[in-house]
Amino acid sequence: MTSRTATTFPPPVMEARRWLEGVTFSADRPLINVSQAAPVDPPPEPLRQEMARLVMEVPQAHLYGPVLGLPELRAEIAAQWSAAYHGAVRAEQVAITSGCNEAFCAAIETLTAEGDEVMLPTPWYFNHKMWLDMAGAVAVPLPAGPGLIPDAATAAALLTPRTRAIVLVSPNNPGGVEYPPETIAAFYALCRDAGIALILDETYRDFHSSDRAPHDLFTRPGWEETLIQLYSFSKAYRLTGHRVGAMVTGRDRLAEVEKFLDTVTICPAQLGQFAALWGMRHLGPWLAGERAEILARRAAIETGFAPLAAQGWKLLGCGAYFAYLEHPLDLPSDALAQRLVSEAGVLVLPGTMFTPPDDPAGRRQLRVAFANVDATGIRTLIARLAAVSA
Amino acid sequence: MTSRTATTFPPPVMEARRWLEGVTFSADRPLINVSQAAPVDPPPEPLRQEMARLVMEVPQAHLYGPVLGLPELRAEIAAQWSAAYHGAVRAEQVAITSGCNEAFCAAIETLTAEGDEVMLPTPWYFNHKMWLDMAGAVAVPLPAGPGLIPDAATAAALLTPRTRAIVLVSPNNPGGVEYPPETIAAFYALCRDAGIALILDETYRDFHSSDRAPHDLFTRPGWEETLIQLYSFSKAYRLTGHRVGAMVTGRDRLAEVEKFLDTVTICPAQLGQFAALWGMRHLGPWLAGERAEILARRAAIETGFAPLAAQGWKLLGCGAYFAYLEHPLDLPSDALAQRLVSEAGVLVLPGTMFTPPDDPAGRRQLRVAFANVDATGIRTLIARLAAVSA
Repeated sequence: MTSRTATTFPPPVMEARRWLEGVTFSADRPLINVSQAAPVDPPPEPLRQEMARLVMEVPQAHLYGPVLGLPELRAEIAAQWSAAYHGAVRAEQVAITSGCNEAFCAAIETLTAEGDEVMLPTPWYFNHKMWLDMAGAVAVPLPAGPGLIPDAATAAALLTPRTRAIVLVSPNNPGGVEYPPETIAAFYALCRDAGIALILDETYRDFHSSDRAPHDLFTRPGWEETLIQLYSFSKAYRLTGHRVGAMVTGRDRLAEVEKFLDTVTICPAQLGQFAALWGMRHLGPWLAGERAEILARRAAIETGFAPLAAQGWKLLGCGAYFAYLEHPLDLPSDALAQRLVSEAGVLVLPGTMFTPPDDPAGRRQLRVAFANVDATGIRTLIARLAAVSA
Repeated sequence: MTSRTATTFPPPVMEARRWLEGVTFSADRPLINVSQAAPVDPPPEPLRQEMARLVMEVPQAHLYGPVLGLPELRAEIAAQWSAAYHGAVRAEQVAITSGCNEAFCAAIETLTAEGDEVMLPTPWYFNHKMWLDMAGAVAVPLPAGPGLIPDAATAAALLTPRTRAIVLVSPNNPGGVEYPPETIAAFYALCRDAGIALILDETYRDFHSSDRAPHDLFTRPGWEETLIQLYSFSKAYRLTGHRVGAMVTGRDRLAEVEKFLDTVTICPAQLGQFAALWGMRHLGPWLAGERAEILARRAAIETGFAPLAAQGWKLLGCGAYFAYLEHPLDLPSDALAQRLVSEAGVLVLPGTMFTPPDDPAGRRQLRVAFANVDATGIRTLIARLAAVSA
């Protein structure tokens, strides 16, 4: 039999990085790397100063902490979530994890046994697919409809007695789209009625374009029986290297989550948790500025897309960190992506990394993680892509 | 079907912590907590100063790093291991993980599919058993023989076509014993000949009483095809809260490990890796002092054990962080451990947490994680236990 890791594919981000090997980029045309959704700058200086103080003065920043995370951070999330979503979230319904990926893995382990099914809208986030493979669960693709918005009625038709959960990512990775509240509500109703879980990954919530709550699920009595919400501190406070994420769900499920977290990582990195807490308490205005800049970059993509549209490219989705493109060229996206490295000085991930092997859509798609590129860089990026397809 | 987490038990350390709830300890008889193998002090000041500098000056300390870890740290381990074991370890044969537990989990995922078997000497480390449960693998108990040293011939008789690995922990958790080089060599030969993996967890290697290499496996040509060695930076440099461990094995296996690590935690916490590297390069003399102190505490247990021996207690094993005791009382160890909280002001873990439910040995055993208790405290601990059994 095949070992668990042998059932899945190598990490796409690492594979794409290997495409850069041996390729040189001139000083007047440096690489535009839009392959990974990660800040390239460290946290703002006041947060770094606080972290330096913690390192010197707070022993607990270096020692084991509770498996489910720093109690103060769990309480802060509960309070800020309750306010932002106009709902009711208690600290005991929050767990801190070693990044949001681990939160997803833990959630799946509380839901599935060998051969159980989990529905993923396509294009999907590849690490979700990889974990389902390794966990012995079956990823059931749910092709996203027009505008990359999945449809609950289509999902309902794919339910089987072995379905344990449906996963939504909003704002979406890789698609960039923000799911409307009514879409999220329809999936919630479907999952609740089917007695399965709705895993809602809101890693990019801090960069949502709406000033209102993106959904009302936390206002609903008994939400914790259906909803498993995931979150990441990596983007908001530039803490990628400190590995801090979160899960918000029912207390009983968190008792199961605790088994997984204890066994895999014992506790999340303590310093990162203290940093996340300080960020939540002090960096609200700073984060608002970060969001405004991301939204400006998104606008730069949307308004600057004309040269590509003229050549048959389509902007399928654009939001949070991502633009998701359909290209007009007569070659599959994985071949195109490798060609773009040398010919355009651009590193993007192909749609084939986000879709099942038998899904033709992925071959025409590219994901652009534009968050690190300013408006000028975005114009350059678009011009370089247009030059290749001209 | 039962979900993966439902197949296993709650974290024992958390359960034991709950025994403290509602119990008060007087100032003249404070709790002696010997339940967890964890430093209670932060890293030494020079390391904390270096970490504060990193936080302020090195952006990479805050950002994503390579999935398999910081290249310099991998190279440092390869160099120091090659020297310490008189063997040949290359940087590409080293992966850094988010603690040693994650290294174990990743190793198992590269080896097993649903229903495969992994042999664990008993008493075992409970997180090993928990992960095998969640991974859908079968933990096959290998009762340790006299002196808590497992026997390769006994293991050979338990091999089946589904056996994928044997796990050894030396110095042992929970048993405290150091496996003789010839025991480790015999298991290596058994695993190599059977075409299965030997997972050798050396988390406590820095506190081994021998000044010589604890085994010669790294000197053997082709070691990387059989051996998966695990290590932790948590104890040596007091970095428990930063979650840094390591795995040393073949490069091909690490390509599989990379899938698991990428999906679960993306990369180990960066600051902890930089700290571990600095520790390896600068804290050798300091660590030698820590080891000397641990060995002195071990000697204090061994030489001070007489009052307990007089009452029928046995010291089954003693080394690294642990003493493993057989008690003479007429009640199972889990009941005794809870009684010791109120009657002796001592928190230990019962042998039932380290043995299969049907193994009578665990009911007479207790694990004492003595590393945080100085010689005076150890005399007090022994006196308190003796008072309860008198």
